[in-house]
Amino acid sequence: MTGNTQVLIDSLPRGKLEAHHYRLHTAEVPTVQEGEVLVKTRAFAITAGTRAGLQGSASYAGAPQAGVVMNATGVGEVVESRVAEIPVGSMVLAPTGWQEFSAHKARMLTLIPRLHDPIHYLGPLGVNGLTAYFGLLEVGQPQPGETLMISAAAGSVGHLVGQIGKLKGLRVVGVCGAQSKGDLLQNELSFDAAVNYKKDTFRADLKSATPDGVDVYFDNTGGMILGAALFRMNVFGRIACCGVVSQYDTDRPEPGPKGIPGLLINKRIQMRGFLVFDFAARYAEAREEITAWIQSGELQVLTDDVQGLQSAPDAFVDLLSGGNVGTRIVHLD
Amino acid sequence: MTGNTQVLIDSLPRGKLEAHHYRLHTAEVPTVQEGEVLVKTRAFAITAGTRAGLQGSASYAGAPQAGVVMNATGVGEVVESRVAEIPVGSMVLAPTGWQEFSAHKARMLTLIPRLHDPIHYLGPLGVNGLTAYFGLLEVGQPQPGETLMISAAAGSVGHLVGQIGKLKGLRVVGVCGAQSKGDLLQNELSFDAAVNYKKDTFRADLKSATPDGVDVYFDNTGGMILGAALFRMNVFGRIACCGVVSQYDTDRPEPGPKGIPGLLINKRIQMRGFLVFDFAARYAEAREEITAWIQSGELQVLTDDVQGLQSAPDAFVDLLSGGNVGTRIVHLD
Repeated sequence: MTGNTQVLIDSLPRGKLEAHHYRLHTAEVPTVQEGEVLVKTRAFAITAGTRAGLQGSASYAGAPQAGVVMNATGVGEVVESRVAEIPVGSMVLAPTGWQEFSAHKARMLTLIPRLHDPIHYLGPLGVNGLTAYFGLLEVGQPQPGETLMISAAAGSVGHLVGQIGKLKGLRVVGVCGAQSKGDLLQNELSFDAAVNYKKDTFRADLKSATPDGVDVYFDNTGGMILGAALFRMNVFGRIACCGVVSQYDTDRPEPGPKGIPGLLINKRIQMRGFLVFDFAARYAEAREEITAWIQSGELQVLTDDVQGLQSAPDAFVDLLSGGNVGTRIVHLD
Repeated sequence: MTGNTQVLIDSLPRGKLEAHHYRLHTAEVPTVQEGEVLVKTRAFAITAGTRAGLQGSASYAGAPQAGVVMNATGVGEVVESRVAEIPVGSMVLAPTGWQEFSAHKARMLTLIPRLHDPIHYLGPLGVNGLTAYFGLLEVGQPQPGETLMISAAAGSVGHLVGQIGKLKGLRVVGVCGAQSKGDLLQNELSFDAAVNYKKDTFRADLKSATPDGVDVYFDNTGGMILGAALFRMNVFGRIACCGVVSQYDTDRPEPGPKGIPGLLINKRIQMRGFLVFDFAARYAEAREEITAWIQSGELQVLTDDVQGLQSAPDAFVDLLSGGNVGTRIVHLD
């Protein structure tokens, strides 16, 4: 522990994010205060939502500034502890950021049970999985036999939403930006259909893929795909607004979709934005159900693994252009 | 009954509606079939929602065509009956359209009790009042002490929403397009504040008028006012999407508001479109409560009265540019 390798935000992007907006830095390993533990990061997840904070505007993701460590949720091992309940050697979920070592107060941590794979806390048992679970089941309120549409369907949240939808008896249609992703969703994850939003025939393809319309739309993107979804929604349909990935990597957000609020009225659609943190009191029950699905093999976990802190900037830029399948995880050396 | 004076749609508007899109016509008085009654129109309401149908596109208001009688909800007297349960002399609410006489099947009618003023069935006891009642209370789910914002607040629905809001213990802020309307809302209808969306200072004025933010927004307009509302909404706020009057009188609808879905997520806002017909099973209970408020003087009914069928086209054009206060009613001679 002679130094703490970090990736700092070097400058805030105007327009598209590029790797040169970050720089490597070596800091002191933090000193642990009473009531804190020191965590050595094993891995962290790269998620599109953190891009919003780099705009400097208010966002649920907070507002990182130049010169600070890039934020991320990670898992790691407690290597020093001044908290009686958290012994050295415990595995924890923590807001580690893009760095080797970080100190945290106990209330910022989630202890990972010995029986669970810590890496799953960056995917199906972490924010991504809980977002998929509560967004679909609580916000979307699906009924068996209904049609579920998902944007960014091969992403860290989307690929779990679709599988949970299948487990709950829905027809599942995923929207993604590459043929290979669509093939994976259909062949490996049992999606009923996949539609490529980059094709000129997107709207017609979406229509063919949703012959009975769409009852629940799980929206990870906003923008044009949300606009297309509105035209396919059934009366009394529900839209779970989870993310706006189409708008993160720009300083010129598109106007909102046409048809709002007109189509919401004609079709009595409910749109509801949510953050997974609002369901914190029920994480344990969700983790229990998700764990059972993983153990039975009914839920496939897709990770997209990257090695080394220094790879994080390129991995983030690539993720924002849709390069990932499943949860992109940076493993520290 | 030698003729039936009607106002026909002469041509469908491209761009703004003008009075010349209508023409007067004299038709035969309809022959009443078994199971039908003949209604002599006493008055009908002119509502912005019927403008949408003139675009020829799908809308909950249906799609009127050139050469047909303009659609409207009216009240009138049964002057001939081939329905045992509906004697001649009954007063009814019916889809009369802009004409003197119309024949209807019994299931298309609402019988108006003798004790009720028939004109109230075009206002607080009709579609407008029921829309205000269910939209605010069921879709908006307000809690006492919360702040309610209403667009088109001096309109046929809006002026009732605000008063019901006051009766339910809310702080009520109305948005309208004229100082005189705002004064009326505050001085006569006990709104807490009124804001003029046509002023350059609209966004600042709205902010001042909603120091604790907005918990429930009753949206009659969509467009720019919806966009401004999104920035004032509180976390877990609710938007009841009732109408899109800003978009009716044009063939070039604006793009949707920025901030959708981004702000819906950050603030966990629920937007829900509704049509009053979805609450039809509960009209009786609503009419009972509204009637009590009218009788006690707690609910003021604003009507904006116009005389004669031939006045209807100008009255509609004027309404679309915001000329009315309360419910615009055309009384037949």
